[in-house]
Amino acid sequence: MELFTYYRSTSSYRVRIALALKQLEFQSLPVNLLKGEQRAEHYLALNPQGRVPMLKADSGELLVQSPAIIEYLEEVYPQPALLPHDPVQRARARGVAALIGCDIHPLHNVSVLNLLRETGQDEDAVNRWIAHWISQGLEAVERLIGDEGFCFGAQPGLADVYLIPQVYAARRFNVDLGGYPRILRVVRLAEEHPAFVLAHPSRQPDTPAAG
Amino acid sequence: MELFTYYRSTSSYRVRIALALKQLEFQSLPVNLLKGEQRAEHYLALNPQGRVPMLKADSGELLVQSPAIIEYLEEVYPQPALLPHDPVQRARARGVAALIGCDIHPLHNVSVLNLLRETGQDEDAVNRWIAHWISQGLEAVERLIGDEGFCFGAQPGLADVYLIPQVYAARRFNVDLGGYPRILRVVRLAEEHPAFVLAHPSRQPDTPAAG
Repeated sequence: MELFTYYRSTSSYRVRIALALKQLEFQSLPVNLLKGEQRAEHYLALNPQGRVPMLKADSGELLVQSPAIIEYLEEVYPQPALLPHDPVQRARARGVAALIGCDIHPLHNVSVLNLLRETGQDEDAVNRWIAHWISQGLEAVERLIGDEGFCFGAQPGLADVYLIPQVYAARRFNVDLGGYPRILRVVRLAEEHPAFVLAHPSRQPDTPAAG
Repeated sequence: MELFTYYRSTSSYRVRIALALKQLEFQSLPVNLLKGEQRAEHYLALNPQGRVPMLKADSGELLVQSPAIIEYLEEVYPQPALLPHDPVQRARARGVAALIGCDIHPLHNVSVLNLLRETGQDEDAVNRWIAHWISQGLEAVERLIGDEGFCFGAQPGLADVYLIPQVYAARRFNVDLGGYPRILRVVRLAEEHPAFVLAHPSRQPDTPAAG
């Protein structure tokens, strides 16, 4: 498989964690979002939305959108499973994933922040915007996840795949995480888990030398 | 089942379509977002995020986040299926759903628009913001969906469950849809499909008399 990725992209990071948890080999094809490579004609011809991540599956098909890519990986490479067997428990994990993927991350995506700046918001206002959505979302996540282990038990799963990149983004933006002891517990476990270490933005082929 | 819903909420509308396509009976429990009922203490005790939709499953469990609720319905009530059998085709449908659910709808959610207003944006600026994200997203959807029938074939599926409420929102905000002939074709089919008619915001128990 090949993954069109950017080292610091939250949604690319999710897919890298899912691939690493399933111990799947893939080639990274970096797309430099700062240089605008996602808007190059040849990339838009493959992905009309001009975003990362995009996965070239074993079959050669190009798949877009991290939630769709991760569900694909779960279906085609079911072990180790990212989702439990019971439908209600699956819905709980997917609920946390969707809360992060729909109600937090899209609101601090680089294109959104750029449009805020274009409409006259200064950096202080942009930072307050970011902190508002991350804090409001993580507060709900804190109440929805479990009391021990990863988000929902001893093994990492779908909710962790979404949470760890979101926390990475929160720290980049200097959002205070002190009020979320459950989330910080999950973060500590992930810091020592080889799949999360492998997928980290600091260790990618396109990570800048100073990164 | 019971659905905590608001007639005009895009994500509640999605779940209503999924329930109707599967011909599942449910009781509507309206939550008036304009009156702030989603922030009432008793509602927050059930749903810490204070949003709709929320589904009370047959088992009594409360499920949040429309993507998680819809996948739950698909797993527990598999027929008629909202997703095809082939994993790549499933990923294509989920990709369009995620594009709408992550990259369009969250950016014009009422809470986002209110924060824009609080930070000094006037109504013209808010309307330009809305049109920007809806147009950019639907342009990509237009390229990703098929040439006939619903988004991906003769029968409606997951992508349609997301697309039709998004088009409803686009029209409410007076976004021009003239450039999207494939999307408009799907809309015409949905307008005559009983499940989409049943789920429409104009026909809910909490639809205002003038609505």
